[in-house]
Amino acid sequence: MLSVEEAQGLVLAPLAPLGGETVPLSQALGRVIAEAPCARTSHPSADVSAMDGWAVIAACGVTHTQIGESSAGHPFLGRVGPGQAVRIFTGAVMPEGADSVAIQEEVTLEGTTIRLSGPVPPGLHVRKEGQDFKTGQSPLAAGKLLSARDIALLAAMNRPWVTVRRRPRVAVLSTGDELALPGEPIPAGGLPSSNGLAVAAMVQSWGADALDLGLAADDFDSLVAKARAAEGCDLLVTSGGVSVGAYDKVKESLAHLGFEAGFHKIGMKPGKPLMFGRLGRMPVLGLPGNPVSAMVAATLFLKPMLRCLLGLEPALPPILLAQLASPLPAAGGRQEYLRAGLERQADGRLAALPFKGQDSAMISEMAKAEALIIRPPKAPAASAGETVPILLLD
Amino acid sequence: MLSVEEAQGLVLAPLAPLGGETVPLSQALGRVIAEAPCARTSHPSADVSAMDGWAVIAACGVTHTQIGESSAGHPFLGRVGPGQAVRIFTGAVMPEGADSVAIQEEVTLEGTTIRLSGPVPPGLHVRKEGQDFKTGQSPLAAGKLLSARDIALLAAMNRPWVTVRRRPRVAVLSTGDELALPGEPIPAGGLPSSNGLAVAAMVQSWGADALDLGLAADDFDSLVAKARAAEGCDLLVTSGGVSVGAYDKVKESLAHLGFEAGFHKIGMKPGKPLMFGRLGRMPVLGLPGNPVSAMVAATLFLKPMLRCLLGLEPALPPILLAQLASPLPAAGGRQEYLRAGLERQADGRLAALPFKGQDSAMISEMAKAEALIIRPPKAPAASAGETVPILLLD
Repeated sequence: MLSVEEAQGLVLAPLAPLGGETVPLSQALGRVIAEAPCARTSHPSADVSAMDGWAVIAACGVTHTQIGESSAGHPFLGRVGPGQAVRIFTGAVMPEGADSVAIQEEVTLEGTTIRLSGPVPPGLHVRKEGQDFKTGQSPLAAGKLLSARDIALLAAMNRPWVTVRRRPRVAVLSTGDELALPGEPIPAGGLPSSNGLAVAAMVQSWGADALDLGLAADDFDSLVAKARAAEGCDLLVTSGGVSVGAYDKVKESLAHLGFEAGFHKIGMKPGKPLMFGRLGRMPVLGLPGNPVSAMVAATLFLKPMLRCLLGLEPALPPILLAQLASPLPAAGGRQEYLRAGLERQADGRLAALPFKGQDSAMISEMAKAEALIIRPPKAPAASAGETVPILLLD
Repeated sequence: MLSVEEAQGLVLAPLAPLGGETVPLSQALGRVIAEAPCARTSHPSADVSAMDGWAVIAACGVTHTQIGESSAGHPFLGRVGPGQAVRIFTGAVMPEGADSVAIQEEVTLEGTTIRLSGPVPPGLHVRKEGQDFKTGQSPLAAGKLLSARDIALLAAMNRPWVTVRRRPRVAVLSTGDELALPGEPIPAGGLPSSNGLAVAAMVQSWGADALDLGLAADDFDSLVAKARAAEGCDLLVTSGGVSVGAYDKVKESLAHLGFEAGFHKIGMKPGKPLMFGRLGRMPVLGLPGNPVSAMVAATLFLKPMLRCLLGLEPALPPILLAQLASPLPAAGGRQEYLRAGLERQADGRLAALPFKGQDSAMISEMAKAEALIIRPPKAPAASAGETVPILLLD
């Protein structure tokens, strides 16, 4: 059986970042920069005052005569000569000639005569042109996931548009005769389908678009018809039909469309039956039907695949460290992912509390979890206080 | 001057969670539950097998005769009698009469005769009806921000719809004669406007909808016309026009529409000029025009306001602890929020590296920051390694 790390390597190997699309800044939140944009203006675009005060020539002593005013959007158009001053406000352009700002708290004013409390050095309270960034510079690199603050920066760079990776389009198909979409009549011994909705929401939260193909029955025609509808997508994610017996049915149906099988078992718990292959150029990830297994497997495989398609580095989500809040028994032969709550301790470190119910049928525990504790195969028993690797959920 | 904490108290005091709207699960990601939904089915809905094997009566020894099969979606409809067994697969309904599952690895099969390697206890490998949740239970509480895993849980509860808090509608208005929307002609000495786009993106990332009113010039008519367009919103956020002098212009213009002024100065840095008041029932938050100040103030005031309107607890984002990666000088009289990078150390604790450029004109530093280090007024100098409170950005 493949290890999780080997399998992650196999699913990521054939993937490359998708192409770009150009969007207005108002639609750029959470998108990933495809082409590093360069600034169309410097910031500040000229030397500006950092304070409210008077713009003067530093070398001209303490007495000056006011000859005008410079405020944001209303620059002084003349030139400051020796002994002259211009009333200036924060962010306003420094008038030509002036090289320093005397702040209003240190000035006495009589009519148009300004007296400083002492001499000022050149450059005082002046923000230099391009201090933040200069025209032509690229303060944001390709691969950056855009926050609201990055959008502020792009706006300040005077870039109303930005070229971002297009969102991966992910077809999501659930299989299983026992399933019904929530709210629809449930077959005898069946249950409402949750994987399609959960995977679609995960896809959305990870920056991609889901095409929900709904439910396929466990038969050839239904599977083939639904899988055909995935044409043109960047990725097909199925759930169910990958355990012994069922696996062959899904595999055979997809084979009819040209499916090339990769692996279908991983040394992990939950989530052992995981299928990977290709339909033409489209990668196919077959998640287990069990909802908890499907969500853990999606976190370990689908999320890195989407990060790869989006050009995000690193593709694999970071593994953090936390201290066990309660002891754990020795692990079995597969790598285990235990659902756990998190708490931040007084010293800033994370404490992970593994839930008592680790049955993969407990969807409510998976919903409640904040992290997965990673237990390598054959890990010995661990006591409370030991440091363990964790993956954050969400 | 008000402290940040006093001002947060004042802006949050008049707010209450908004009403609910009912959305399909496919649109519920990131929404906040308004009414705790109860399960319409138990999970599992009947006793089911946790393994592939044979369903038997535990008390009937080791030799059994197979009389049928139960798989997911295809339950066995008869009854298991003494000495009888039903082939069963993971997740399939336990047939009537049977109380235990002998897993296939511990069974030898000759024709229809099944021999167990030893007796099994009752209940072995059986998941009991309602083990995860029972019909009528509410495993998700009101106030929960819905993750993809919660959506899986709601689907398993057979709830195709969920009642969530409606998204707050936030009008965003930028003011300043020096500004132009990115890509439009920039006035002499002016610069591209970034606050409107940044605040709209923050509003979106915090679970609300922005109505971007664009730019108002610094004159009465323009301000009044734009502010009127905010009618019907849950909140009006302005930026600019709140510093000395300018403040009176915005205040007077809004007064024409019935503005009641609250405070307009906070003991914080960056972001001292912050205006708060009400237009009729609508709270008005006036952010400073400086982009970094505006984003810091939005993080400290707008985010908690939106969390309050969404019914999220606690309204104030958590303050975490981190260790200083480099020393800090003593703080001034206002509470400072220093832009910093974060690194997770080997022991799991966070290290915060305050940036050298703390000038509030550095938008690129604000974009790069991962956290704000909180420096209380008059905080003494701090050495590297000391623990400091931080706020995470994003």
